[in-house]
Amino acid sequence: MKWMHVTYRIAASADDIDARAEALAREQSVECPAAAVRDVRVREAVMGKVIAIGPDGPDHFRACIALALETVGDDAGQLLNMLFGNASLQPDVSVLDVAWPDGLPDLPGPRFGVAGVRERLGVPRGAITCTALKPVGSSVAALAALAGQQARAGFHLIKDDHGLADPVSAPFAERVPAIQAAVDAANRDTGGRCVYAPNLSGGPRAVQGQLAICRSAGVGAVMLCPLVLGVSQVVELVRDELDVPVLAHPALGGGLRIDPALLFGTLFRLIGADMVIFPNHGGRFSYDVASCQQIAAALSMPLGKHAPALPVPAGGMTPERVGEMCASYGEDVVLLVGGALLAAQDPARAMRGFVEAVAAEGVKHG
Amino acid sequence: MKWMHVTYRIAASADDIDARAEALAREQSVECPAAAVRDVRVREAVMGKVIAIGPDGPDHFRACIALALETVGDDAGQLLNMLFGNASLQPDVSVLDVAWPDGLPDLPGPRFGVAGVRERLGVPRGAITCTALKPVGSSVAALAALAGQQARAGFHLIKDDHGLADPVSAPFAERVPAIQAAVDAANRDTGGRCVYAPNLSGGPRAVQGQLAICRSAGVGAVMLCPLVLGVSQVVELVRDELDVPVLAHPALGGGLRIDPALLFGTLFRLIGADMVIFPNHGGRFSYDVASCQQIAAALSMPLGKHAPALPVPAGGMTPERVGEMCASYGEDVVLLVGGALLAAQDPARAMRGFVEAVAAEGVKHG
Repeated sequence: MKWMHVTYRIAASADDIDARAEALAREQSVECPAAAVRDVRVREAVMGKVIAIGPDGPDHFRACIALALETVGDDAGQLLNMLFGNASLQPDVSVLDVAWPDGLPDLPGPRFGVAGVRERLGVPRGAITCTALKPVGSSVAALAALAGQQARAGFHLIKDDHGLADPVSAPFAERVPAIQAAVDAANRDTGGRCVYAPNLSGGPRAVQGQLAICRSAGVGAVMLCPLVLGVSQVVELVRDELDVPVLAHPALGGGLRIDPALLFGTLFRLIGADMVIFPNHGGRFSYDVASCQQIAAALSMPLGKHAPALPVPAGGMTPERVGEMCASYGEDVVLLVGGALLAAQDPARAMRGFVEAVAAEGVKHG
Repeated sequence: MKWMHVTYRIAASADDIDARAEALAREQSVECPAAAVRDVRVREAVMGKVIAIGPDGPDHFRACIALALETVGDDAGQLLNMLFGNASLQPDVSVLDVAWPDGLPDLPGPRFGVAGVRERLGVPRGAITCTALKPVGSSVAALAALAGQQARAGFHLIKDDHGLADPVSAPFAERVPAIQAAVDAANRDTGGRCVYAPNLSGGPRAVQGQLAICRSAGVGAVMLCPLVLGVSQVVELVRDELDVPVLAHPALGGGLRIDPALLFGTLFRLIGADMVIFPNHGGRFSYDVASCQQIAAALSMPLGKHAPALPVPAGGMTPERVGEMCASYGEDVVLLVGGALLAAQDPARAMRGFVEAVAAEGVKHG
């Protein structure tokens, strides 16, 4: 019998917590009263078990619940489902952490990881610089021109905004080859190795079409939103299709009541993200310093056979924060700055300034 | 220019709400400061616009924001993304409602709807009865025997638990033909038309394999979890693959801070759900009466060209609640009871009792 140990935070009184935790253990496994579980094997080897309960502030408890790995198999969607599928509908519960005493579910993990991404991007040391193509609504020509400007400014990585899917103003099939060509042209001029990561989106057939366009254009990375595409689709792509690094975007993930370090750190890494975007503290989003550090830690801490992935703290970052962010995250980080550069009076100069500031930090800490 | 009008609930002070709503309008469209939007067309036709702001309780406001339909296209994932992708990461915001003054995005809606499901199940009037195959961990033989018992008891619809994916104890490829055969045998004996809805799960390749098994076994409906599979995958299935009704499960949806009537009512209906499971009030989940009524209303209210879908209030329902639920939801409802029947001393008798109670309500109200 193999189990995963899931720590839930539950709002309950001291009188109720034992029964509440037992109910949660059943909810996330057999989905019925214990009396309905007549098969001894199911009762012993599959029904969730409360392992420990401890206090966690006023009227809150932490309950560690063992869930059978056999209910998960090797499917990431089913992993999310067993962790929190039904319990997401019970507002008194959130998921804090998972431990894997009997081994991890069979998921691919990062195909490239920190070392593979560094090799692809030609950045052996120091922080990796990334910027975004925006705003949605721009023409293909405008986005390609912007990408060329960004590549010439020295960015290592350029990604689509996650709002750039397949709009009439810049259809994927026209946009991606044009942007890749602009980046290629800039690379030829500068001798750089800037990589463009288009945003995959839509149903599986749409994504397959986009992948063919990416291959044909010689794209060197992709971005995707695992919680919009479905984590199981991402796993199939990583296992069977993609031969470039994956940049994962956290869209839709903020409300899930799954701890950010577990969701964006451990789970995104397990499904194969090489780089994970998350809202840095002090930007447009509200994650605090500790949460951000925990996400970054979850991306690099030992996790079975899996390579470490790169944190991409983002969301309203500015060039002024380069020093602080390099000091905070260390050199294995992707610094993503988008809108702040585009809003500058002289965007090209702001881009160069950002890239130079990151390079200077690398020398300082190197 | 075509827009959708999204109503967000925002925690903010009266001094801050104007700036906060403006920032949200940009976040869910151009994702950058207004100063970075230099293209006049993008500024006028794509950048989100605050339409109205009103109070909504202490330190909370409702902001109606216009978002350009051209950023959504015909992709359901992108619709979720533009509604709430980034804003999900901002805990001061939730989504309450969407209005479509310029028309709906091009999504399939229910292929069968209330009338089509009734025809398929052979239930022209009255509440439809549904039960679940559980617990996960059971053998194929045990699940098939249970399905036969349920079909003989007179249930119109039998569904897999959403935790029953593709476990070693009952692999999809063995389970589905065996259960369908058991239901077919019972139908031959009873003259009934009970339909089995297996649970589709996993990545697109896995789902395609499961669909082939369903077709070969003559399955008459499917269940799926749109927020686990990815809504875009569901739309492709409904548009191009499925010729049976779709039962949608709300797994993972509870934490999203999207109003349940919008998410499980309008959005699940738009992507093609013919029947939508949601947590009924008074069960294991915490939705109140008003929320449940609003979900049911959203499934049947006028919505472009789309057929109405059936509400499936569920989650710890008991036979004793049949009368109340029939009175509350009217006859266009699927009454789903699972664990309570299996936990009874004599499950077969409890099943028959439930089916008879629903039939008696039909006569009473008919």
